[in-house]
Amino acid sequence: MPSKVTFDLQATDGKARTGVISTPRGEIRTPAFMPVGTAATVKAMMPESVRSTGADILLGNTYHLMLRPTAERIDRLGGLHKFMNWERPILTDSGGFQVMSLAGLRKMTEHGVTFKSHVDGSKHELTPERSMEIQKLLGSDIVMCFDECPALPASDAEVAESMRMSMRWAARSRDAFGDRPGHALFGIQQGGVTHDLRAESAEKLREIEFDGYAVGGLAVGEGQEAMFNVLDYAPDMLPTDKPRYLMGVGKPDDIVGAVARGIDMMDCVLPSRSGRTGQVYTRQGVVNIKNARHIDDPRPLDENCACPACRNYSRAYLSHVFRSNEMISGMLLTWHNLQYFQDIMAGMREAIAAGTFAAWQSDFHSGRAQGDIDPL
Amino acid sequence: MPSKVTFDLQATDGKARTGVISTPRGEIRTPAFMPVGTAATVKAMMPESVRSTGADILLGNTYHLMLRPTAERIDRLGGLHKFMNWERPILTDSGGFQVMSLAGLRKMTEHGVTFKSHVDGSKHELTPERSMEIQKLLGSDIVMCFDECPALPASDAEVAESMRMSMRWAARSRDAFGDRPGHALFGIQQGGVTHDLRAESAEKLREIEFDGYAVGGLAVGEGQEAMFNVLDYAPDMLPTDKPRYLMGVGKPDDIVGAVARGIDMMDCVLPSRSGRTGQVYTRQGVVNIKNARHIDDPRPLDENCACPACRNYSRAYLSHVFRSNEMISGMLLTWHNLQYFQDIMAGMREAIAAGTFAAWQSDFHSGRAQGDIDPL
Ligand SMILES: [Zn+2]
Ligand SMILES: [Zn+2]
Repeated sequence: MPSKVTFDLQATDGKARTGVISTPRGEIRTPAFMPVGTAATVKAMMPESVRSTGADILLGNTYHLMLRPTAERIDRLGGLHKFMNWERPILTDSGGFQVMSLAGLRKMTEHGVTFKSHVDGSKHELTPERSMEIQKLLGSDIVMCFDECPALPASDAEVAESMRMSMRWAARSRDAFGDRPGHALFGIQQGGVTHDLRAESAEKLREIEFDGYAVGGLAVGEGQEAMFNVLDYAPDMLPTDKPRYLMGVGKPDDIVGAVARGIDMMDCVLPSRSGRTGQVYTRQGVVNIKNARHIDDPRPLDENCACPACRNYSRAYLSHVFRSNEMISGMLLTWHNLQYFQDIMAGMREAIAAGTFAAWQSDFHSGRAQGDIDPL
Repeated sequence: MPSKVTFDLQATDGKARTGVISTPRGEIRTPAFMPVGTAATVKAMMPESVRSTGADILLGNTYHLMLRPTAERIDRLGGLHKFMNWERPILTDSGGFQVMSLAGLRKMTEHGVTFKSHVDGSKHELTPERSMEIQKLLGSDIVMCFDECPALPASDAEVAESMRMSMRWAARSRDAFGDRPGHALFGIQQGGVTHDLRAESAEKLREIEFDGYAVGGLAVGEGQEAMFNVLDYAPDMLPTDKPRYLMGVGKPDDIVGAVARGIDMMDCVLPSRSGRTGQVYTRQGVVNIKNARHIDDPRPLDENCACPACRNYSRAYLSHVFRSNEMISGMLLTWHNLQYFQDIMAGMREAIAAGTFAAWQSDFHSGRAQGDIDPL
């Protein structure tokens, strides 16, 4: 195991890249999808099951963990990895995005944000310095800068002003993070959907210097076309020798489109959240287990999937346990969705290394366009 | 694998017995605790995890399964074992008890019971013949007679009348079951807490002849002392060369007391239901994970337990995920409780075989009397 975090870019195919981020806690094969373990658990999954799908790294949420059980408590208990029984790398977000979407009574100044907890109404403050402190207490391997993402719709002037404050916060984050061998700090590009603001943001981040760079402020409701328009140029503004992380993305075709545009890492609650509501992602598109057509269907969800839901159960069983509100429904469908997302990542890594990513993408899209197998 | 169900009584120690029930689907080591898989799932558990705790057999509920997904559907899908991915033996109850406790608008006659489904209000009938048919459609390995258990309090005359009808239903169940090599039919002794009625019931059942005998009508709110009073004589009225099953029991000390009185098999929802509400059974008594004392406690629930909850997590983590309503809380605590119940059974089997059951019981009770470890 290396003593510091490094990125080895091993192959490119068009703009798509494959490589390995090495950390003292293990390797992260890129492109990588990070399941989200919001409150120190990937919902409905045991961590060893998450690992079995091929996940190399999890995402943890600073906002949720600072409120409950608190970063100080996790530190006293030996850090987040030990607490949640996940020995491999963890990336933590900065808390900024969730303060904006979940907390009550926010007040933002140049110094930071004060807010009330959505759990118990208690008052808290997040600043670049406090976010770095929390992420250090958690023991995060990849720490994110504390930044701000303006609520949409926003004028160009508002987006610019917000981005510039985020860049000042990025510099403060860098200073507060200090020198922590074995841990990485990622900067976050902002600038909305405006090319020149994205360029300005990227330039500022490159000046400060980070171990990786995120594309922030996307996947916030702008739609896939607008997101891909930005991804057509924004990743190119970031250093080629560092990992590029697209935050909060996304659906399978968002993920594939982002990788095609030079993104190396992503995270999203979609596979686990959808699993609990009966929505299943497969090679042939989306399957809704609530649909009556599955009630008598002895076939697996996806005959090409190696997850336990597909290996050991019929659609009829999955339909039954979903309708009966049984916990095993969320457990099995989440497992399947996470397996499918990791299978996509593995397929892309292989195709990029082999120089066949265009053909892989074509297969991916035609499989999904095909739609679910015919009812019996 | 044998082609029929046999019982090999291997050792006794006082009234306590240990042996093996052999079935075409595998052996059941007795005394056996059967986790309850009401709606074709042991709640919050994967079947392979249930097996890993040492469970040889599960219980399935005729009443729930006949309503949803229906016995006919399970039959078309290849039977309950395949449906729920549990290849080992399954015992199904007859549906009688749950009709009385869950269904709406019941009407009972000598013929059977009509009732409305608690799921969708649809109308159904259960008779000895229909119960046998349903349990056959499910593919149950151990089938229970259809019987009736009077609501308490009941006069001696009411208990006697109810018991005699159950014995007529037992004869009809035996006829309807027919000859099914590899599958067993168990009769159910009734008679409340009255010695002579228990004796009369046992005599009727022995005349009819069954592959095993249950002690029914207990664990329905009469309290441990009243139950043990009956168990002091009721099992002795049943054949020694067949398994004896105490239905719906129970708490750890109920189980141990029942085994000490000659019971071979039990089932109960307690370990899984308690797991979901944060109540944990350990060698040192009951632990309530809701209690604030666990919030900062880095120690495992039970340092002598090999389950994942105890091996991989602190009380602080279990406290956190319980408070956060995370599914992994129910998953881990259920796993622990099932492991503990199976550990008790394994301990008793070993002690009975070694002739040291009295000492084992003494250790069991003193461990539990000790209470939980001191707070830090
Ligand atoms: Zn699958
Ligand atoms: Zn345990």
